[in-house]
Amino acid sequence: MSAASEKIRVLTGITTTGTPHLGNYVGAIKPAIEASQDPGVQSYYFLADLHALIKCQDPRRVQESRLEIAATWMALGLDTDNAIFYRQSDIPEIPELTWMLTCVCAKGLMNRAHAYKAAVAENEAAGNQDPDKGITMGLFGYPVLMAADILMFNANRVPVGRDQIQHIEMARDMAGRFNHLYKGQYFTLPEAVVDQKVEVLGGLDGRKMSKSYNNTIPLFVSEKKLQKLVRKIKTNSLEPGEPKDPDTCTLFQIYSAFATAEETTAMREEYAGGIGWGEAKNRVFEYLNDHLREPRERYQALLEDPGHIEQVLLKGAERARAEAAPLMDRLRQAAGLGRFV
Amino acid sequence: MSAASEKIRVLTGITTTGTPHLGNYVGAIKPAIEASQDPGVQSYYFLADLHALIKCQDPRRVQESRLEIAATWMALGLDTDNAIFYRQSDIPEIPELTWMLTCVCAKGLMNRAHAYKAAVAENEAAGNQDPDKGITMGLFGYPVLMAADILMFNANRVPVGRDQIQHIEMARDMAGRFNHLYKGQYFTLPEAVVDQKVEVLGGLDGRKMSKSYNNTIPLFVSEKKLQKLVRKIKTNSLEPGEPKDPDTCTLFQIYSAFATAEETTAMREEYAGGIGWGEAKNRVFEYLNDHLREPRERYQALLEDPGHIEQVLLKGAERARAEAAPLMDRLRQAAGLGRFV
Repeated sequence: MSAASEKIRVLTGITTTGTPHLGNYVGAIKPAIEASQDPGVQSYYFLADLHALIKCQDPRRVQESRLEIAATWMALGLDTDNAIFYRQSDIPEIPELTWMLTCVCAKGLMNRAHAYKAAVAENEAAGNQDPDKGITMGLFGYPVLMAADILMFNANRVPVGRDQIQHIEMARDMAGRFNHLYKGQYFTLPEAVVDQKVEVLGGLDGRKMSKSYNNTIPLFVSEKKLQKLVRKIKTNSLEPGEPKDPDTCTLFQIYSAFATAEETTAMREEYAGGIGWGEAKNRVFEYLNDHLREPRERYQALLEDPGHIEQVLLKGAERARAEAAPLMDRLRQAAGLGRFV
Repeated sequence: MSAASEKIRVLTGITTTGTPHLGNYVGAIKPAIEASQDPGVQSYYFLADLHALIKCQDPRRVQESRLEIAATWMALGLDTDNAIFYRQSDIPEIPELTWMLTCVCAKGLMNRAHAYKAAVAENEAAGNQDPDKGITMGLFGYPVLMAADILMFNANRVPVGRDQIQHIEMARDMAGRFNHLYKGQYFTLPEAVVDQKVEVLGGLDGRKMSKSYNNTIPLFVSEKKLQKLVRKIKTNSLEPGEPKDPDTCTLFQIYSAFATAEETTAMREEYAGGIGWGEAKNRVFEYLNDHLREPRERYQALLEDPGHIEQVLLKGAERARAEAAPLMDRLRQAAGLGRFV
C-alpha cells in the first residue's frame, strides 16, 4: 500500500460548460483548494467533460470551458503535484466501469433521480404528451457515470450540495450491489460531505450567481470589465449619507466573501455610516481587483500556454490511470471478462 | 484508404453466455463463416461479453462461454487473418463511444425497445406494482451499446433476426443525430440484413433449439453424449415399416441441415419407406458424428491451448483498435474533447 492509498480520498468533479465566476470561487474552488492542502487527504479533481456533453453540444464552448477551468484552478494555486488533477475523458476506464455499473443498476433507481423527475415535471407542466420529451439517455442515466467517477478511485468523501446527496446514495447502492453480486470488496462506499456553511454568492441581479441566470461576474475578466460589472450590481435607491443594511446587500456579501473579518467589520460600519453606492462599489472593485490581479496574471499566462496545461493534465491522467487500470483489471476478472491465460 | 476500408463491412456479435449448439451452427455460425470468405467483404466478429453481463452474473459461465465460442468459431474454420475477430471488452473505445451516443439518444427511443417492453409486460402480467421491477439499466439501455458496437467500425451491414431490426434502426437514429449535431459525416448508417432463408433448428423436444428451453444439442460434445442426445430427440409412436412424414420431424430437419441435397432426398425416401426411429436416429448420429469429428478434435485442441486463442483475440483487438482509436479521436475533437495542443 502506498502512503497515498492510506489517506482519505476526496473527489470533486467540475462540469466543463461554463466560465468560472466569483460564485464558483467562493462556493467551490476556494474551499477545494484549501482542502487539497491537507496532508491527510488525497484529492482528486477532474474536469467532468463527459458530463458536459449531456447539456452542451457546442464543441467550442466545451473545449474553451475545459481550458478556462483548468487554468483557473491552476492559477488559484491548486497543487497539482499533490492533488490528482485530470480530465475525465482521458480515463477510458471510467466509461468501461460505467457499463459494468449500468448492468447492476436498477432502472427504478434512475426513475427516481431528481434531475430526471424535474425534467418530466417540466414536460408535464408544459402539457407535453410525452413526459420524456427532449430527455436524452445521458440526462436519464448520468448518475451511473457519476458513480463510476467516484467508485473508480474508491473515494471516501465527495463534497456536494444538498441537491447531489442522492447521487452519492445511488453510487453507494451500485457499489454495494456489485460487491454483493461478485462476492468481494471491490468498492468503498463513498460518503457525501455537505458543507453547511458553504457560501452562496449573489449575482448582478441579487439572485444566486449562476450561469443560467446570466448574472455572473467571471473571475478573470479585465480590470475594466470587472469595474463595469461591479458597478452593475443591483443596489437600492438610498442616497449617500443614509444608513444602509449590509445583510441584504449583494455588494456587501461579495466583499465579505473575499475580505478578512476586520475588513468586513469596517465595511459594515461604513454602511451604517451611510457610504454612497458609487463609493462602495469603487471600494469593492478595488479590493477584488487587488486580490485577483496576481491569479489573473497567472491565468492569462496559462491560457497563452495551453501546452503546459495539457502536460499537467496528462500527468494527472497518468496518475489517475495508475489507480484505475489495476482496479478495472480486477473488476473484469470478477465479472468473467479476464484474459484466458 | 486501405483496401479493407473499401470493402463492404459486415458485423456480427455473439453474446457470450451459452455453449454453441447445433442450432447456432446452422442458423448463425455456418452462414457467417461462409460470408467471411467473400473477398468483397470485411467481416467483424466479436464476442459480445459486455452484453453478456446484462443477463449473466456468473463469472465462470461468462468466461467459459467466451472461450467455448472463440474455440468453436476457430475450429469451424473462421479465417481470423481475413475476418477481424475480437472480444468487445478488449476495445475500450466501445464504452467511450457508448457514452457519446448516450448523450444523443432520446430516452423515448429506449422506452419503445422490444426487449424492455416485453420485460415491462411480464411485470404487469405478474401483477407487479412496479413495471420496472428487476429491470436494470443494462437491459434498458443496451441498444446504445449495440449502436456503439456497430458504429465504431462503420459497419454497412448487420445480419440480424427479425426481432433485432429495431436495434439497427436505433443505431441509425443515433448515428444520424450525432452527424447532425456535430455537423459531419462521422458515421455510416448501417443496414439490417435479414436472411429470409435462415434455418431455425428444432431441439430435443421439437421446439426451437434454444438454451432457454434447455433442449439443445451442443456442437462439440463427446461421441457418446452426442449419440445419447440424438436418441432423445422427440419422435412420434409410428412403428418400423409405417411411412413417416419428414416435414414435421425434428430428426429429419437436423439431418437435412447438415446433409447434401442428394443425401436429404435419399433420407426422405427412407421415411416414406418406413424406416424405424431407432435406425433413423443411428443414421443421423453417424452422419453428424462423421461431420463433427474433425472440428471437434480441433475444438478440443484449442480448448487445451487457451494461450493460442488469447493471442488470436488480442491480434484481432489490435486490428479493431487500429480502426476504432482514430475514429474516437475524431469524435472527441468533434465534441470539444480534443487535446489542447
